[in-house]
Amino acid sequence: MTERIILGIDPGTTIMGFGLIRVVNGQMQFLQLNELQLTKYSNHYIKLKYIFERTLALIDEYHPDEIAIEAPFFGKNVQSMLKLGRAQGVAMAAGLSRGIPITEYSPKKIKMAITGNGNASKEQVAKMLQSLLKFDPMPKNLDSTDGLAAAVCHFFNAGRTVEGKKYSGWGAFVAQNPSKVK
Amino acid sequence: MTERIILGIDPGTTIMGFGLIRVVNGQMQFLQLNELQLTKYSNHYIKLKYIFERTLALIDEYHPDEIAIEAPFFGKNVQSMLKLGRAQGVAMAAGLSRGIPITEYSPKKIKMAITGNGNASKEQVAKMLQSLLKFDPMPKNLDSTDGLAAAVCHFFNAGRTVEGKKYSGWGAFVAQNPSKVK
Repeated sequence: MTERIILGIDPGTTIMGFGLIRVVNGQMQFLQLNELQLTKYSNHYIKLKYIFERTLALIDEYHPDEIAIEAPFFGKNVQSMLKLGRAQGVAMAAGLSRGIPITEYSPKKIKMAITGNGNASKEQVAKMLQSLLKFDPMPKNLDSTDGLAAAVCHFFNAGRTVEGKKYSGWGAFVAQNPSKVK
Repeated sequence: MTERIILGIDPGTTIMGFGLIRVVNGQMQFLQLNELQLTKYSNHYIKLKYIFERTLALIDEYHPDEIAIEAPFFGKNVQSMLKLGRAQGVAMAAGLSRGIPITEYSPKKIKMAITGNGNASKEQVAKMLQSLLKFDPMPKNLDSTDGLAAAVCHFFNAGRTVEGKKYSGWGAFVAQNPSKVK
């Protein structure tokens, strides 16, 4: 039996979505899906501190083998990108401090991997995740599913390579595993 | 006797300059000035890992009471700002993980605090630092003095407040302490 745990994070400056999946013999199992609300903290450092600490706490509780991060590469302006970079940086530092490999995926790539459509809506991504991982109920704030989506995207892109197979995304996975899609 | 240690960092994606000063009874003492060369690492994560680890190592060796970071708020484009934000983020995470207060200063504010001129050249800042802190020799790469400059800027702006005085910069410091300027 091979078992690996993937932690997915979407570190933003207003909300950090995160999710965890376990991959057992090439099959995904749902572990956790949650969010860290950051809007209540007006202080920028407090936000960064909570992102760092929560990521570290998740690592120390679940001992993930890999971390997948949703990382937009484009933003409205240099100010918002600097803040986003800091949020990503502290989340990455938590992984780096524990020696866990990090892979980043653009939002488009994540949507593509999960729904087969790089322009899919948040609702479409969330519904597909629920169908794949059987979690219930759907969280009220769909932003919190972005972290889990990054973990699932990583599973489709690299998570199965240890079993000697490589899938390029959800579409290829469906084509090769029709019995696994319900 | 009051004693405090200030760690100054300028986290960039090609070089991280850092410096340490000890403040004893309101007087600055030079501790260290160095740089971490990052151009040799092509991998972005390796760079971030080294920034994080070196910052953490400096903290655990010198136990600074405060950290001052040089943080530009403007950049060429969103891509470079994202990378800069990540570099700043991992350096901040090192401080946050040890519970050390962080203050950031813009390059202009640092130049102003040290030379009295927000548009001073790197050479002018470096010479003033050398005059204030008596270190020798001057480093070949003046970029490495940027971290030390942030620490000294923090001393002028906040480092003396524990003694019940507040200086708004080098100019005010000189005016109030003519005997300390050599």
